[in-house]
Amino acid sequence: MEAEPAHPTQRLDDGESVGASALWPAAPRAGAAPGIETHELSLLGSTGREVTVTCIDYGPDACEFHDVDDIHAFLATHRPDWSSVRWIRISGLTDMGVIRAVAEKYALHPLAIEDLLHLGQRPKAEDYAASPEHPGRLFIVAQLPRRVEGRLLCDQMSFFLGRRTLISFQLREEGIFEQVDHRLRSKDSRLRRNDASFLLHSLLDAIVDHFFPILEEFSGRLEEIEESVLAGGNSDVLKDIHRTKRDLVMLRRTAWPMRELVNQLSRDHHEGLSETTRTYMRDIYDNLIQILDLLETYREFINSLTETYLSTVSQHLNDIVKTLTIISTIFVPLTFFAGVYGMNMPIPENESEWSYPLFWGFCAVLVAGMVYMFRRRGWL
Amino acid sequence: MEAEPAHPTQRLDDGESVGASALWPAAPRAGAAPGIETHELSLLGSTGREVTVTCIDYGPDACEFHDVDDIHAFLATHRPDWSSVRWIRISGLTDMGVIRAVAEKYALHPLAIEDLLHLGQRPKAEDYAASPEHPGRLFIVAQLPRRVEGRLLCDQMSFFLGRRTLISFQLREEGIFEQVDHRLRSKDSRLRRNDASFLLHSLLDAIVDHFFPILEEFSGRLEEIEESVLAGGNSDVLKDIHRTKRDLVMLRRTAWPMRELVNQLSRDHHEGLSETTRTYMRDIYDNLIQILDLLETYREFINSLTETYLSTVSQHLNDIVKTLTIISTIFVPLTFFAGVYGMNMPIPENESEWSYPLFWGFCAVLVAGMVYMFRRRGWL
Amino acid sequence: MEAEPAHPTQRLDDGESVGASALWPAAPRAGAAPGIETHELSLLGSTGREVTVTCIDYGPDACEFHDVDDIHAFLATHRPDWSSVRWIRISGLTDMGVIRAVAEKYALHPLAIEDLLHLGQRPKAEDYAASPEHPGRLFIVAQLPRRVEGRLLCDQMSFFLGRRTLISFQLREEGIFEQVDHRLRSKDSRLRRNDASFLLHSLLDAIVDHFFPILEEFSGRLEEIEESVLAGGNSDVLKDIHRTKRDLVMLRRTAWPMRELVNQLSRDHHEGLSETTRTYMRDIYDNLIQILDLLETYREFINSLTETYLSTVSQHLNDIVKTLTIISTIFVPLTFFAGVYGMNMPIPENESEWSYPLFWGFCAVLVAGMVYMFRRRGWL
Amino acid sequence: MEAEPAHPTQRLDDGESVGASALWPAAPRAGAAPGIETHELSLLGSTGREVTVTCIDYGPDACEFHDVDDIHAFLATHRPDWSSVRWIRISGLTDMGVIRAVAEKYALHPLAIEDLLHLGQRPKAEDYAASPEHPGRLFIVAQLPRRVEGRLLCDQMSFFLGRRTLISFQLREEGIFEQVDHRLRSKDSRLRRNDASFLLHSLLDAIVDHFFPILEEFSGRLEEIEESVLAGGNSDVLKDIHRTKRDLVMLRRTAWPMRELVNQLSRDHHEGLSETTRTYMRDIYDNLIQILDLLETYREFINSLTETYLSTVSQHLNDIVKTLTIISTIFVPLTFFAGVYGMNMPIPENESEWSYPLFWGFCAVLVAGMVYMFRRRGWL
Amino acid sequence: MEAEPAHPTQRLDDGESVGASALWPAAPRAGAAPGIETHELSLLGSTGREVTVTCIDYGPDACEFHDVDDIHAFLATHRPDWSSVRWIRISGLTDMGVIRAVAEKYALHPLAIEDLLHLGQRPKAEDYAASPEHPGRLFIVAQLPRRVEGRLLCDQMSFFLGRRTLISFQLREEGIFEQVDHRLRSKDSRLRRNDASFLLHSLLDAIVDHFFPILEEFSGRLEEIEESVLAGGNSDVLKDIHRTKRDLVMLRRTAWPMRELVNQLSRDHHEGLSETTRTYMRDIYDNLIQILDLLETYREFINSLTETYLSTVSQHLNDIVKTLTIISTIFVPLTFFAGVYGMNMPIPENESEWSYPLFWGFCAVLVAGMVYMFRRRGWL
Repeated sequence: MEAEPAHPTQRLDDGESVGASALWPAAPRAGAAPGIETHELSLLGSTGREVTVTCIDYGPDACEFHDVDDIHAFLATHRPDWSSVRWIRISGLTDMGVIRAVAEKYALHPLAIEDLLHLGQRPKAEDYAASPEHPGRLFIVAQLPRRVEGRLLCDQMSFFLGRRTLISFQLREEGIFEQVDHRLRSKDSRLRRNDASFLLHSLLDAIVDHFFPILEEFSGRLEEIEESVLAGGNSDVLKDIHRTKRDLVMLRRTAWPMRELVNQLSRDHHEGLSETTRTYMRDIYDNLIQILDLLETYREFINSLTETYLSTVSQHLNDIVKTLTIISTIFVPLTFFAGVYGMNMPIPENESEWSYPLFWGFCAVLVAGMVYMFRRRGWL
Repeated sequence: MEAEPAHPTQRLDDGESVGASALWPAAPRAGAAPGIETHELSLLGSTGREVTVTCIDYGPDACEFHDVDDIHAFLATHRPDWSSVRWIRISGLTDMGVIRAVAEKYALHPLAIEDLLHLGQRPKAEDYAASPEHPGRLFIVAQLPRRVEGRLLCDQMSFFLGRRTLISFQLREEGIFEQVDHRLRSKDSRLRRNDASFLLHSLLDAIVDHFFPILEEFSGRLEEIEESVLAGGNSDVLKDIHRTKRDLVMLRRTAWPMRELVNQLSRDHHEGLSETTRTYMRDIYDNLIQILDLLETYREFINSLTETYLSTVSQHLNDIVKTLTIISTIFVPLTFFAGVYGMNMPIPENESEWSYPLFWGFCAVLVAGMVYMFRRRGWL
Repeated sequence: MEAEPAHPTQRLDDGESVGASALWPAAPRAGAAPGIETHELSLLGSTGREVTVTCIDYGPDACEFHDVDDIHAFLATHRPDWSSVRWIRISGLTDMGVIRAVAEKYALHPLAIEDLLHLGQRPKAEDYAASPEHPGRLFIVAQLPRRVEGRLLCDQMSFFLGRRTLISFQLREEGIFEQVDHRLRSKDSRLRRNDASFLLHSLLDAIVDHFFPILEEFSGRLEEIEESVLAGGNSDVLKDIHRTKRDLVMLRRTAWPMRELVNQLSRDHHEGLSETTRTYMRDIYDNLIQILDLLETYREFINSLTETYLSTVSQHLNDIVKTLTIISTIFVPLTFFAGVYGMNMPIPENESEWSYPLFWGFCAVLVAGMVYMFRRRGWL
Repeated sequence: MEAEPAHPTQRLDDGESVGASALWPAAPRAGAAPGIETHELSLLGSTGREVTVTCIDYGPDACEFHDVDDIHAFLATHRPDWSSVRWIRISGLTDMGVIRAVAEKYALHPLAIEDLLHLGQRPKAEDYAASPEHPGRLFIVAQLPRRVEGRLLCDQMSFFLGRRTLISFQLREEGIFEQVDHRLRSKDSRLRRNDASFLLHSLLDAIVDHFFPILEEFSGRLEEIEESVLAGGNSDVLKDIHRTKRDLVMLRRTAWPMRELVNQLSRDHHEGLSETTRTYMRDIYDNLIQILDLLETYREFINSLTETYLSTVSQHLNDIVKTLTIISTIFVPLTFFAGVYGMNMPIPENESEWSYPLFWGFCAVLVAGMVYMFRRRGWL
Repeated sequence: MEAEPAHPTQRLDDGESVGASALWPAAPRAGAAPGIETHELSLLGSTGREVTVTCIDYGPDACEFHDVDDIHAFLATHRPDWSSVRWIRISGLTDMGVIRAVAEKYALHPLAIEDLLHLGQRPKAEDYAASPEHPGRLFIVAQLPRRVEGRLLCDQMSFFLGRRTLISFQLREEGIFEQVDHRLRSKDSRLRRNDASFLLHSLLDAIVDHFFPILEEFSGRLEEIEESVLAGGNSDVLKDIHRTKRDLVMLRRTAWPMRELVNQLSRDHHEGLSETTRTYMRDIYDNLIQILDLLETYREFINSLTETYLSTVSQHLNDIVKTLTIISTIFVPLTFFAGVYGMNMPIPENESEWSYPLFWGFCAVLVAGMVYMFRRRGWL
């Protein structure tokens, strides 16, 4: 148990602890200003960890991947004419300079910047309507469940959807969107022919697909626990059940708001979301419903297992106590009678030659009577 | 227990494992393109298993059953004039060529094709509105519960409803729709006089009717468990209870979305669904409500049985321990007194002739006192 | 337990088993045509059991009860002019000829006929709108709970409400509606002055009133169980609790859809339902709410009783084990010491005259010490 | 336990048993006419118990209390001109003549009269719209919880609100509305300046205020139970918990429909309810929400206490059994060895002088070994 | 346990007991007038405790903090022209004179004054619409959770929002709003540039931020309990679990209506609330959703822990009883046999030299047989 790290909830919350705690304190100072204005970003310390910015321009006819080194130079240039969608992908949230540059260029809302930096957000979609200060943008936070060394973690992903631009922020560079890159590069893909909201759909779809291997692993764990319980179980089963329940609670806590988020995107009209995207969003929604369904099924299943295990334990206790009782009930009286004839007082029976065989006969009768009684009570 | 196969949920999901796993991996590659475009179908391996395509044309005056051998030739010909409804029934999902041909001819939506091939879908109705690319069609996924060798399986059925055409896909050829065929062949049947949506109703009705024998079997199992519990139960009852609970959870997981699906069909206006069909759908809806009601009743009933069983076990333990205690409480002190007079030290009592009868008298008094005490406490 | 008949749910479903199973198989053949067309009725076997058809014509000024012998002759004649409402009451569902005659004359919907014959329906109101084929009629199924030899049964009642006609079907002739007959006969009654829907209200009111004596009986059973539990309980209490829970589940399963049904009738506008009737329906609705409230209260109450009983059992076990432990803890060591001085090896203490009194003194000290320890632990 | 009277639900239902059962049977005759027509009132027996009728006329400038002796004479006279609101307060429901006189004068609806006489109604507001037969009136039933000799009772109060008149019926004359009388008499009170609906508000407010002392008493009981449980508890705690749970269920059953009732009054527009009254109703609504909140908190709290108690009992059992096991495990083997050397057969060890000290040494080693083993298992 | 003060709910209710009980009795006199008219305030005793009134005027260009000594003089003067928002902050609710002066000047609604003085209100927003008597104002009650000496308390805060004025009442002067003061003083802050409703947002945000350190503490407690349970647990764990559950219930009881309150403010249009404020309110709403989510997760987690603990206890009991049974089962029969040969009657075996070694051999065989049996049953 010692290797088991801190509290489960924290695990979901802190993403990667190093990066997270360096960025933003978990509990905000009470009364502090809401949101993070862009000029405040410079005040937040930037650690030396690498931040990768990739810009992907694509249209039906072309697709270009471009690693950005100088963010300011990049933001100053215009996008090529053939580009119908620009996807700016920022991996790593440690360089505040980069985030400020992007936030200023695209006039991101201070509340959104706060959410994007403050890890452990509940998945949600926020529509920051166009205002004199900020152009309208759809801001989306999602959580990607990962299994690291047997622990369940969540990586936060944030997206800003404009009309022709999608900006994505993720904590670490990893091949989550490899398949999406692949589809962008293949000439004929439906993705290339569609707009920025369809790209958002593809990214959310990729995130939701990450739930399935975790569910499969759960299914395996449950199977093992079921086998162990039905075979009689040992005390470690209890800890396994507890850990599995805890992980189920956490996963549901992530999947549930994802469902709300995707439902909102598939239902509500929003200028950035095309009709096609909304239809495809329903497909992700169906996946999430299925995930939640499975989680619920697992929950009921593990509850049934817990009950069965507990009943097995009681049943076992019963068996043990029954044995004890039979043994005691048979021998304790006999021992008393033997003790009586071991007394050193003048006992008439002790004079007779017949006493010993009679004693054994008496014992046999007593035992037979008790065995009969136990049989009648159904104990034997 | 060893004969018991893999995890319950998987059982519901995998239909027939051979066919299912050959078709489509359970967990999609994260980020892969959503839906299956028709040209991608050729890339999916087709196994050698037989696929049966049956075309049924009918109208008030005639009905023709036609086994299709060459799907392409068939799709190229026109339907006869007297045919008011054409039902294309495809049994077996292993020949991608057939599926592609039908999908291209009827312009089925890529998301629907994915759902139809990816077994283990949640029952649902999806209305793919007409678009320049695809004509509008109602796509329906249903699950047919089956009991195979004591295990609960679900067969997925998919339907595409057009104005005058119904295309149905099912995993295996079996006499599920025998009665429907029979009604189609009988001249006077209401089915012949109605439109394609009424055929859909008849098929869904047949699927829902398959729940009833399974419920009846449940009712029998519950009855057996109740008898066993009230008779005192043995430890196998626990495993039976656990298995029944698990199956109830699974069945509800199938029936619940079926209810939603049928409710949607009976309530929402849709161009393909006639008013008459909607009225008849309400009848299926009532059946599903009754099924869910029964499942809920069974669930409460089995919970009550579990509690009763556990209480019986405690009660039993109580009885056993009570016996143990009475025996011990009576004989342990007596044994001590016998032991005292067996000591080899000079004991005055051991000199007297009266000691032995007095000792027995003392024992009698002690036992009487204890029996009195137990009576007062209600233990005897 | 052997006298206890089949499964609880079945009991609710099968009404009277003889009549019910003769009429309609519980599980429909999958895929069979929905509904029963009138011409199919003749195919269903009619048993020889008596069917009573009563026709009651009434208006503000007159009321006539008329036992119908020849159903065809009766249906061919016109109703008298003074009759503002005609109530055709059919008791017994075994003569298909009668049912067919009525169904054809009043053009009853095939789905309604199926529901009316297929016992064990969920209470519901179905509005079959007027169509070229069928005139509009409100079809209502209700369940009347009855207590027969300690078992809870439900009798199904069906009603067809037209503008000036009410047709009622019931399984057996019994004085359920005696009071209603009485009110119809009394000149001044509000019932006589109102329309057919008010008659429907009166019949539903009579049905709902049948719940109250059953609830009262429950209240009595709960009281007995409570007394028994608080007095310590015996193992039969468990079976009583189980049976009561089961009956509560069943009764709620009947009352809940009755509530929905009456709510629908009191809320929805329907041509056959007058404003007055809707006001009075709210009164039945209040009754049903109260019934459900009581059932819920009973459920919580019996759950609390179960918990209390289980706790009492544990507490009792505790007490027993405590006694056992005290006895053992006091005498087992003493017995050992007595055993030691019974050993036949040379023991110096056995030589001394003082050993015996010292031994008793030692025992006294040991016992005193243990009693002191038990006191401190709160066991004595 | 013997002093404990009949069933809990009945207690809520029967108000004061004498009065209640004399008035109206709990279970209505099935099929009896709904509602009570005024002319039927005379048929109900009037007992000799005193009925007090008080008429209170008030306006901004004056307020007059008037005890009515002759109800018919009183109803024949007109109200004074200065009176803006007339409140007719009837205490006691035993004189059917009085009730009939009022019902006829104010044309009260038969269903309302039935509800008012039939005690144990669920709190509700019923708007009897104006009809040719009856003028529109708002009919309100409320329940006033009382604690009588440790039992929870409910007094039913009924109100008819007209435009300028309020008629109230209560079962017994008691100082429930003393404060309201006081406010009516004081010249400047807001109550005097407002209309009849504001008076209704004041009465409902007074009724709801009666919940608070009962909640406070609950809070005290819970505190005592908590102390008792955390101190280890005894078996009476179980009965206290059971009784408290039962009372909580009952109180919630009363408070919940009161909440609905007040919510309806504060939300729905109704001609008799002024805007000001609706604002003030929200205040009562807040009180009821708080009451239900507290009841829910108490429920969760007592559930937690039950669990804690049960766990404490198990823990205790554990401790006891542990002691038993330690004692037995140490002394039972030793006793056996002592027994061996007490055997009367030729035993070489019994010849040696060293045997006795060696025996004790052996015992010491055995005990030490066992103690070590227990320490390792964490039992000591 | 003795140090533990009164009942949990009371703790939430009474704020600081001294102040609270001096102000307003918990249970209102039934029937007393609703609300507190301003002239009644003088009748309520004012204790000598200090009340601090601070007036803060600010606009984009300036901000002035002003401690008010003479409330009447202060209220008589006009606010400076540059002031766009005036915040009157009243700390301490003991000087009725001050409250009356403010209530009269700003025409606060009597119901609001009652709520503000009557501590333990459920958080809520009440919109007192403008009436001839009172100008329209939004009245808001919030609860600030605090942890004092291990106990969870709630401080009530009340706010009256006008168009350009915010009046806040709090029970004690403490640095809750320090950060807000700081932001008001800093020239460029978004707060200074916005209206009074934005100030309200900042205050509510500060209050909600106070939940987070308490949640963190919970997370720590749960971690400790989990460790303790998985390590086997001791009986104190139960009390910790009980206390944590109780605190969770209480915290949820506070957070839940806060969520409703903030949701209402972010959703409903109200003249005092600007569009910007509503956007920012959604941010608080997200925080509250996260808080409730965490509380729910904690609840499920602690329930799982309770179950695990109870199972561990049973498992432990099982182990103990198993040991006891093994020891008894082995030695009790042996002791009997030793007792037999200690009897003083003529026993043939006692004559033989071989008896003693044979006896030991017999014992060895018996023990071996029993060990074999235990192994087969899986007890060893």
